[in-house]
Amino acid sequence: MTREKIYLFDTTLRDGQQTPGIDFSVEDKIAIASMLDEFGFDYVEGGYPGANPTDTAFFTQKRTNRAAFVAFGMTKRAGISASNDPGLAQLLQAKSDAVCFVAKSWDYHVKVALGCTNEENLESIRESVEAAIAAGKTAMVDCEHFFDGYKANPDYAVACAKTAYGAGARWVVLCDTNGGTQPPEVGTIVAAVIAAGVPGSALGIHAHNDTGQAVANSLAAIEAGARQIQGTLNGIGERCGNANLVTLIPTLCLKETYAERFETAIDREKLAGLTRLSHAFDELLNRSPDHQAPYVGASAFATKAGIHASALLKDPRTYEHVDPASVGNFRKVMVSDQGGKANFINELKRRGIAVEKDDPRLDRLISIVKEREATGYAYEGADASFELLAHRTLGTVPDFFSIDGFRVMVERRFDANGHLKTVSEAVVKLVIDGESVMSVAEGDGPVNALDIALRKDLGKYQAEIGDLELTDYKVRILNGGTEAITRVLIESGDATGVRWWTVGVSENIIDASFQALMDSIVYKLMKNRQLAGKIAAE
Amino acid sequence: MTREKIYLFDTTLRDGQQTPGIDFSVEDKIAIASMLDEFGFDYVEGGYPGANPTDTAFFTQKRTNRAAFVAFGMTKRAGISASNDPGLAQLLQAKSDAVCFVAKSWDYHVKVALGCTNEENLESIRESVEAAIAAGKTAMVDCEHFFDGYKANPDYAVACAKTAYGAGARWVVLCDTNGGTQPPEVGTIVAAVIAAGVPGSALGIHAHNDTGQAVANSLAAIEAGARQIQGTLNGIGERCGNANLVTLIPTLCLKETYAERFETAIDREKLAGLTRLSHAFDELLNRSPDHQAPYVGASAFATKAGIHASALLKDPRTYEHVDPASVGNFRKVMVSDQGGKANFINELKRRGIAVEKDDPRLDRLISIVKEREATGYAYEGADASFELLAHRTLGTVPDFFSIDGFRVMVERRFDANGHLKTVSEAVVKLVIDGESVMSVAEGDGPVNALDIALRKDLGKYQAEIGDLELTDYKVRILNGGTEAITRVLIESGDATGVRWWTVGVSENIIDASFQALMDSIVYKLMKNRQLAGKIAAE
Repeated sequence: MTREKIYLFDTTLRDGQQTPGIDFSVEDKIAIASMLDEFGFDYVEGGYPGANPTDTAFFTQKRTNRAAFVAFGMTKRAGISASNDPGLAQLLQAKSDAVCFVAKSWDYHVKVALGCTNEENLESIRESVEAAIAAGKTAMVDCEHFFDGYKANPDYAVACAKTAYGAGARWVVLCDTNGGTQPPEVGTIVAAVIAAGVPGSALGIHAHNDTGQAVANSLAAIEAGARQIQGTLNGIGERCGNANLVTLIPTLCLKETYAERFETAIDREKLAGLTRLSHAFDELLNRSPDHQAPYVGASAFATKAGIHASALLKDPRTYEHVDPASVGNFRKVMVSDQGGKANFINELKRRGIAVEKDDPRLDRLISIVKEREATGYAYEGADASFELLAHRTLGTVPDFFSIDGFRVMVERRFDANGHLKTVSEAVVKLVIDGESVMSVAEGDGPVNALDIALRKDLGKYQAEIGDLELTDYKVRILNGGTEAITRVLIESGDATGVRWWTVGVSENIIDASFQALMDSIVYKLMKNRQLAGKIAAE
Repeated sequence: MTREKIYLFDTTLRDGQQTPGIDFSVEDKIAIASMLDEFGFDYVEGGYPGANPTDTAFFTQKRTNRAAFVAFGMTKRAGISASNDPGLAQLLQAKSDAVCFVAKSWDYHVKVALGCTNEENLESIRESVEAAIAAGKTAMVDCEHFFDGYKANPDYAVACAKTAYGAGARWVVLCDTNGGTQPPEVGTIVAAVIAAGVPGSALGIHAHNDTGQAVANSLAAIEAGARQIQGTLNGIGERCGNANLVTLIPTLCLKETYAERFETAIDREKLAGLTRLSHAFDELLNRSPDHQAPYVGASAFATKAGIHASALLKDPRTYEHVDPASVGNFRKVMVSDQGGKANFINELKRRGIAVEKDDPRLDRLISIVKEREATGYAYEGADASFELLAHRTLGTVPDFFSIDGFRVMVERRFDANGHLKTVSEAVVKLVIDGESVMSVAEGDGPVNALDIALRKDLGKYQAEIGDLELTDYKVRILNGGTEAITRVLIESGDATGVRWWTVGVSENIIDASFQALMDSIVYKLMKNRQLAGKIAAE
């Protein structure tokens, strides 16, 4: 059976830029365009040349090799000819393979926002598409507010779509601009547009997630006959975001109900790079990936419950909706007080730590973990601390250095100019190879001071931790009152791109932070030795 | 036209507890159950009595007033009678209105996980339901792996559902346990179950978000005839989470396509509390609300695009899929409007602070609050700090005392017996009536030491703060790294039973804590004077 192709149109660099809190620089856009191009999208929309200096600069060159590079912009203004519209001219001069015009298709907005007649708007669509084709570009039209417009005036909305198609647009994209349309409505309206004469092979869908249905709406449009999906990486976008292509792609590729009828440019091999793509994009945005993200989240194939966990290990296929490896993710059976011995062995194995089921050290490790979790440690969120604890219990981690003590002081006082200021200072005493090393540092708060002092002089190990960086710091108070138990989680990373989490727990927040900082440094030293294969020789 | 009721079943406290990183204490569960009960859910599932000490303790009392309180547990084991199964006995003894049994409905799992025959499993379902009814409870059955089971063996999956219904179960809930089923499949299978003899009025849907379709799958089941939805607050749950009730409820209530056919227990007034409910739950989990969450996110009605923003103000209804106020959220366009000022006047009035609309001090207060919130303060969670700031700006709070400075020291060192121990000490210098007062204290950590020192000697006010007590302490890191901005929220209470929250923000956690502690003490002194009607005389 021949499968029909679903075209993937990425608008991360255009609609994604509307996300509150996200602003791409030209360099960001170049890096992201190259990620998207390599991954294999059919179309990469780069922005709106002429609308702002970043987008104008970005479009001075073509930025993709394989994907069609798309410039977004408005149709020509009413009342002037296409050749006299300076905005349109700038758009056509941009170095792109295709132009995606945004056109009003709700008569109310034609009147209120454009202030022209319905016929003038159709003329703008027609002439803009023709001008783009004359300039040697593929033309597409995003029909803005299409679904709300259709509900208000179906004839006019359809006329906009037909005009675009009739003028030669390769794609007519139906946009749920306000994001409130429900999947059954999308299906009905897409079918009506096809019945009116625009073939499904020329129809695209642009959905927003305002009711949590952007993925479902995109697939409802495909079911009804549309063949192009617009979306973004990790679902970024205005308000609640756009359709998440990272979710849609594996569903199209792996779910029988779609995979047996449709194909995309993403083959099995590329699909296995999906988790990496998603996380690399978050990395570029400098934010932590969503653990609960479908397919690619750290928790997407994680199991906490003990009963499930042991059954899962027996036959994962009946407990997982797809194979985690197919999207480049992996199974995670979490170590927590709910888990059994099978969890532990599996977790250790995944970290390259072999241990026999009846090794008494394994029982000791399990009881230490349970005991610590009862006092507030959370190893399921602190992989590195768990690995370190396992190595220590199994006797395979060297004592790099020891702590003689530390002192942290925070003082709020008047400075020479009579202003109140707060100063934080930390002193750390270490013993390395029998020699005492003492460091002092100031910081933006006691934990920062402690971190700086701790990493200031690590003797013969100092060169090894040069690329160690703290990337996140979380504090959780485990019970009420100021005498509460505090849990600190620290995320660290290094130049190899690896990240790890460590944990510390104490009634004293400084102490808890110190434990997590120490674990991070020791983990880094251990990791360096594992990479160098030197553990045995040490 | 009569609208059919859709029943809302919340499983935040049961399936939500499977979320990696979430562990509820009994106190957490009590607080959450009360939030859910007040909001108006039909069923609140509290956990699995007998499975762990927390859930067993939670079920020693009924925890809801209006909602049916549901205990979750397994059907009786095969090979023994219902009356001889200790797990079932414990479940039936739990103080609940209803029992929700989880039952296998995929023949493969019956064989592999239960190790019994298909007929024995049906018998377990039948006898467990009968035992629950005999114990005076409403019985429900969660058919685990129903959709995958149906695909493998439709007759057996349907037999499980029919057995549960035939034995008297009020609800038979079809669970997409692995979360991979697509909406059209859900619709087809639900319709098939109804055609086989289980009426839609007895069918529920339990969807997971592994393909980003939990909301769509829930609604597809409703379209097909099911009348109960299981889900969680903010979509927490195992792996990628459960169906998000915070998203589903407004869609059911506000979207014509559903609202004209269905009704829920959530009326317009309750719906307006949705954003507050969602945020209060995140607060309890000590995590930042998702800005892009449908309906309730801070960005859900935010507009960044310049063109859209001005058009939006002209006629918001054509740019917003629902009215933000209907879910207790608000439009976010960065313009100062009269609505903002009216809000402030209302907030102040609610606290007994009268101020004229054109009082310049009101403008000053608004700009101070906006400026501080931009740097991380969150007055919506810190009523007392807001009230104090208002009184200060309006000039109606006396200077009880002033701060000359403080010093906090945390030292980790070896004690006389060679054990490492950590000591925290704080020194506070105050000026009261021109006289300097200096106090020193040790504590279980720096904040506790600071709290004790601060309240040790408040001169003539000391007697007044004798009943002041700190009841909760929360820390939130507002951005990454150890140089991050820290927000501290402190809850205090006194003998009158009143509780209040204060806030402090700084790059230094000690400083932030000190601000919140100070605000709490000053608020207490101010409150004492308000109670005594003494403010004017002071």
